Amino acid sequence: MNQPPQTNIVETTFHVRYAETDQMGIVHHAAYVVWLEEGRSQWLRSNGRSYAKLEQEGFVLAVSELQVRYLQSARYDQRVTVRCWVESVQSRQVQFNYEVVDPQNGTVFVTGYSKHICLNHAGQVTKLPDQWRALLAEKSH
Amino acid sequence: MNQPPQTNIVETTFHVRYAETDQMGIVHHAAYVVWLEEGRSQWLRSNGRSYAKLEQEGFVLAVSELQVRYLQSARYDQRVTVRCWVESVQSRQVQFNYEVVDPQNGTVFVTGYSKHICLNHAGQVTKLPDQWRALLAEKSH
Amino acid sequence: MNQPPQTNIVETTFHVRYAETDQMGIVHHAAYVVWLEEGRSQWLRSNGRSYAKLEQEGFVLAVSELQVRYLQSARYDQRVTVRCWVESVQSRQVQFNYEVVDPQNGTVFVTGYSKHICLNHAGQVTKLPDQWRALLAEKSH
Amino acid sequence: MNQPPQTNIVETTFHVRYAETDQMGIVHHAAYVVWLEEGRSQWLRSNGRSYAKLEQEGFVLAVSELQVRYLQSARYDQRVTVRCWVESVQSRQVQFNYEVVDPQNGTVFVTGYSKHICLNHAGQVTKLPDQWRALLAEKSH
Repeated sequence: MNQPPQTNIVETTFHVRYAETDQMGIVHHAAYVVWLEEGRSQWLRSNGRSYAKLEQEGFVLAVSELQVRYLQSARYDQRVTVRCWVESVQSRQVQFNYEVVDPQNGTVFVTGYSKHICLNHAGQVTKLPDQWRALLAEKSH
Repeated sequence: MNQPPQTNIVETTFHVRYAETDQMGIVHHAAYVVWLEEGRSQWLRSNGRSYAKLEQEGFVLAVSELQVRYLQSARYDQRVTVRCWVESVQSRQVQFNYEVVDPQNGTVFVTGYSKHICLNHAGQVTKLPDQWRALLAEKSH
Repeated sequence: MNQPPQTNIVETTFHVRYAETDQMGIVHHAAYVVWLEEGRSQWLRSNGRSYAKLEQEGFVLAVSELQVRYLQSARYDQRVTVRCWVESVQSRQVQFNYEVVDPQNGTVFVTGYSKHICLNHAGQVTKLPDQWRALLAEKSH
Repeated sequence: MNQPPQTNIVETTFHVRYAETDQMGIVHHAAYVVWLEEGRSQWLRSNGRSYAKLEQEGFVLAVSELQVRYLQSARYDQRVTVRCWVESVQSRQVQFNYEVVDPQNGTVFVTGYSKHICLNHAGQVTKLPDQWRALLAEKSH
């Protein structure tokens, strides 16, 4: 995983929920996948867009690939920050990268990325709407 | 909660998943809610219906009320059986009752019920389709 | 469900996550159960306690009963507020009540309650620690 | 991703749960992560072991890396089969590989792998217990 960029990172912070723990006493590894998605939602909100709107316009960003590396364990009740940025954008796809960190001391819990392809309502691969691609490209690294 | 009936109960059995545990070392209480729903799906399958089809026909059974009583804790890896039956049916709503038990020794983990109202695609309360109501009424207690 | 009290309600607000939706296009009914729990966590935090600490001291508050009434559907990306208060407290158990509302217009999505019994590390029902019971009683209605 | 091996694959089959869908009308991408874990549990069961026992002996297999490629979308109510095998084993870690397929027509929904490191109760990286490593090595590819 490359180093995170210096700019255009969007952060969102929340408490670990009890339901997100497992019997190891730590956050279950699937919970981070949901957090990354929330980081992505926040990226769009912070850039004046909403993924809900994209769907209303007839497009979805289907997840085509996901990778997560687990470095340290987060625990119930602590605050965690998801840092999200656009790694790359092409005509039909986009890659977001992530870090989940402890906002108090910077400990990195996980790093990861997700790749998405743009589909229309019929489920066919299609080009990202121009405005969306322009935004993603402008903010990518 | 009344005693379960003697007939028309549908059972489905599966292993507890690791993700369903929490840091108490037992199954998280929200996981049972998902299991009850799977018991409901199995009830429909076993009676020759599919909830997926009902939705394709333009109806949904929205949950209007849920109650669960937690008696014993299920744990990772053990097998659990969801027992589901129709408690009552009216023109616009239906109530399913449940038990989640240990199939080996009959220990009851939870009991519960869910009430559902029938909505059309516009989100309006509507009558259950005749065939569905007939089936539910025939099997209810 | 009684009316919510005028005081000692603790609120926590967050965005609906995409993973919390289902194919009805609305928030899945089990997701609210997780939100109520987060409301409970926030109640403790706001009152200077942490449920994590209670567990470290050797106690758990096991859920013994849960009821939720679903009035309106929340949707992806909107902000929701969980309102939580202590309804009653006894030597060995406590009941929390909840509302989940739209912070913009006050629409009530769900109301509910959860009952909890205090267990020690051996899994035996036990009295709430004095300091905890005093706090809960002082804030109850 | 390499081709799956011809032998030592363990399969487990179940219905897609309604709660596992999202508002795209398909299975949410985080649900597959839970399914892979259940495939892993089944691998151990089928080989006469239980992950629950490993934990009782004082060890955990913490997830250190996860990758999933999403090829086709699974949907509510259909049956899906998780195929799991040991890709490689070392003294302190093990990699499981997976496919999730449609048992009726062989459609591949996702492929993926997870890497795990062995930790003792103190959270320190440690060698896999001999019996466990021998089993995993014997069955690996």
